[in-house]
Amino acid sequence: MWLQGNTDCMAKLSEVAEWTGATVAAEFAAVEVTGVAAIATATLQDIVFAMDAATLERALASDAGAVIAPLDAPEQKRAVLRVKSPKLAFAKAAAKLAPQRARAGIHSSAVVDSPELIGEGTSIGPGVTIGPGVKIGRNCQIFPNVVIFAGVSIGDNCMVQPGAVLGSIGFGYVHDVEAGEYIPFPQVGTLVIEDNVDIGANTTIDRGALEETRIGRGTKIDNGVHVAHNVRIGRNVILAAQVGISGSCTIHDGAILMGQVGLGERVTIGPGVILGGAAGVYPGSTVEGPGQVFSGIPAQPVKDQMREMAMIRRLAKKPNA
Amino acid sequence: MWLQGNTDCMAKLSEVAEWTGATVAAEFAAVEVTGVAAIATATLQDIVFAMDAATLERALASDAGAVIAPLDAPEQKRAVLRVKSPKLAFAKAAAKLAPQRARAGIHSSAVVDSPELIGEGTSIGPGVTIGPGVKIGRNCQIFPNVVIFAGVSIGDNCMVQPGAVLGSIGFGYVHDVEAGEYIPFPQVGTLVIEDNVDIGANTTIDRGALEETRIGRGTKIDNGVHVAHNVRIGRNVILAAQVGISGSCTIHDGAILMGQVGLGERVTIGPGVILGGAAGVYPGSTVEGPGQVFSGIPAQPVKDQMREMAMIRRLAKKPNA
Amino acid sequence: MWLQGNTDCMAKLSEVAEWTGATVAAEFAAVEVTGVAAIATATLQDIVFAMDAATLERALASDAGAVIAPLDAPEQKRAVLRVKSPKLAFAKAAAKLAPQRARAGIHSSAVVDSPELIGEGTSIGPGVTIGPGVKIGRNCQIFPNVVIFAGVSIGDNCMVQPGAVLGSIGFGYVHDVEAGEYIPFPQVGTLVIEDNVDIGANTTIDRGALEETRIGRGTKIDNGVHVAHNVRIGRNVILAAQVGISGSCTIHDGAILMGQVGLGERVTIGPGVILGGAAGVYPGSTVEGPGQVFSGIPAQPVKDQMREMAMIRRLAKKPNA
Repeated sequence: MWLQGNTDCMAKLSEVAEWTGATVAAEFAAVEVTGVAAIATATLQDIVFAMDAATLERALASDAGAVIAPLDAPEQKRAVLRVKSPKLAFAKAAAKLAPQRARAGIHSSAVVDSPELIGEGTSIGPGVTIGPGVKIGRNCQIFPNVVIFAGVSIGDNCMVQPGAVLGSIGFGYVHDVEAGEYIPFPQVGTLVIEDNVDIGANTTIDRGALEETRIGRGTKIDNGVHVAHNVRIGRNVILAAQVGISGSCTIHDGAILMGQVGLGERVTIGPGVILGGAAGVYPGSTVEGPGQVFSGIPAQPVKDQMREMAMIRRLAKKPNA
Repeated sequence: MWLQGNTDCMAKLSEVAEWTGATVAAEFAAVEVTGVAAIATATLQDIVFAMDAATLERALASDAGAVIAPLDAPEQKRAVLRVKSPKLAFAKAAAKLAPQRARAGIHSSAVVDSPELIGEGTSIGPGVTIGPGVKIGRNCQIFPNVVIFAGVSIGDNCMVQPGAVLGSIGFGYVHDVEAGEYIPFPQVGTLVIEDNVDIGANTTIDRGALEETRIGRGTKIDNGVHVAHNVRIGRNVILAAQVGISGSCTIHDGAILMGQVGLGERVTIGPGVILGGAAGVYPGSTVEGPGQVFSGIPAQPVKDQMREMAMIRRLAKKPNA
Repeated sequence: MWLQGNTDCMAKLSEVAEWTGATVAAEFAAVEVTGVAAIATATLQDIVFAMDAATLERALASDAGAVIAPLDAPEQKRAVLRVKSPKLAFAKAAAKLAPQRARAGIHSSAVVDSPELIGEGTSIGPGVTIGPGVKIGRNCQIFPNVVIFAGVSIGDNCMVQPGAVLGSIGFGYVHDVEAGEYIPFPQVGTLVIEDNVDIGANTTIDRGALEETRIGRGTKIDNGVHVAHNVRIGRNVILAAQVGISGSCTIHDGAILMGQVGLGERVTIGPGVILGGAAGVYPGSTVEGPGQVFSGIPAQPVKDQMREMAMIRRLAKKPNA
């Protein structure tokens, strides 16, 4: 079964506490839950979570069977799991209680050149085409209609959503000035995707021209993103929807690129840099500063951009402006 | 037959007049037409339309069998249908004369988990994958290689163009600071698409995280659009190509978002608001004003943006600038 | 075999010289090579190239079997091919030595309405759907999961990467003000793609509404691009990734649109114009100037934009700003 919803699993709160590092009063340890839910729609079988007092109040008043709450939540006559990071604990509980996984195996309509290179527990959905020499690790989910070109390597625990194209032929041409036309530059490199990478629907990642394109461990990529040839992306990087990365860019560990960000060719994004939505970086530039937010085109520290915008607004309002 | 062109149907002008609310002189009521065309290429079997005097002149001089013209068009010795809105009448005539519909039924290469939930007259093209529990109404066209995840609900008369992905797993993670990695937040909500919605090629719409994503009746979405989890879109909204909508946005009835517009998370767009091409709205903001045009990043009323740009241009041209 | 990597072919340097217009010393004319590579990873069987002195030094010190160098490169006791444009020669050599071609023929899972209209040497990959009346020339590569609507015409030597959608139904509606809803305007025109056009993965190109959309000979289109109905694109135009072209635009020969550029409706881009990344052009505007670079929204000559930005930056830094 492909594209299945979540299969709820039953567990005692003592188990949930163990998965999430939470504590639960002994009297509620045997309470059983089977899934996660929003507060408004939770039933007695669901766990919900709250990060602040107001939400906690709503959660406690809901039908939920259990509430994951911050450590300092007041005592309740109700099943409460206390933990430092309720949202993180909720996510960890959900991964166990409501796993969303396609069935392992290769769908009969998939065209897979080298099935022996595909790891155990990995699911290859309908309509997928996988070229020769493609290695895919264990417990990956390759959703329907994904296309993976020859020689691409994918690690363990990766998820590739429908319609993504991996290892495609990069956009490189040499202008033949005399003939007045464009001649393709060879695109014979490869693409390496490390472990725990998620790739969104209809995202495209080109292979290297002569070397490789690489996506580091734990990096998460949203829908409709484009990553060009020879790009090197570090670990635990976030690329939100519709981001566009030009050729030969380097994005270091932990950077966050919000939706529609665009990088010109050969841009370097330092570790932990945050680029606001629709920000743009000129070709060849470097943006650095862990945890700092940059915005605009060309991207600059957000407070500089804010000051400029305030200045413009003020000047434009002057009578003689 | 999938992806078919228009199948021309023969009709008398009296019938066309009835479909479109137009009037036609009795002597031309029995003239037969079989399709619609541009003025330059029209044949005797085609209807064309004109909204102004210059176009009308060209239309009357063309080979077209009939001309849909404004109410105040001068009398002609030629088949003319008079109507308040010629373009609208032309569109209505085309829907009858040149229907573009795939054959109802499920193509043998489609993978459909619950075919009993698919309505009468609906067409499911080659290479489509539809997960369990997906409900699709009547007279829908699901074009090739569309992927619909479990539990999505689609109304009547919807069109989903090739490669669109509906109900995909949203981009939500919790940063596990200690482990230095991102943990998936559960994406176990659903996606509801109401009646008469059109969705463009390679557009992606994520399911809700815990609740739902919803696309209101009559809304039209172009190619390459991204709609994130928990977004609520009202009725008769227009999303042009490559628009990106971040998580938990609300877009009210009748809003128009031109190409490449981007909304940050939790943005509210009021009823009837028009966002110009590539406009951007900061996370958490609200843009309101029915029929008003907003542009730039952050989006502001277009005349304010124009004034600012004029001021900048003037200052930059001063000798000491 | 679909999505195959490059199949290396053996050739003597005398042959490579002939293909590329290079000269090679007689003593090295019989040296055999089988592929192209980056300098860092080249083996004795590979050709590499260098365009400047520093790179040439690295190339000569590498394991590469032969080096394509500029005409003025100093004499070497090593296989060197001398040519005016080393990068162009390298590309031409690669096309012969490392051809990347899918096998000609139609994959069994493709759904092709009119196979008799498909030219010799053309490859149609798995999961492709091609509507009735579609003509495809010789030696084209139609990669997996491409969808081509009825009546589209494609020339010789075209490449269409996975997930591209050609001739889709354009985004045209008439607002029925009384009913408060949008009625589809007929999209019954066609799409003509001339010879030697490359189209990237998940790119969408709509058919004309009543007339045609046309992509001129030698034009190269990257991934995730959107081209709307009635657009006319000239010869040898470059559209980089995520470019969006609204309806009825005209782009003349040799124009270059960098990543994420957006054009409003009915825009004209003159021959040889270069639009920088994320530039935007307002509906109805014309941008002209062969070889000139334009940037920003609305796009203006890059030096004007730079002057404005410098002025803004200076003003914002003043104490009273």
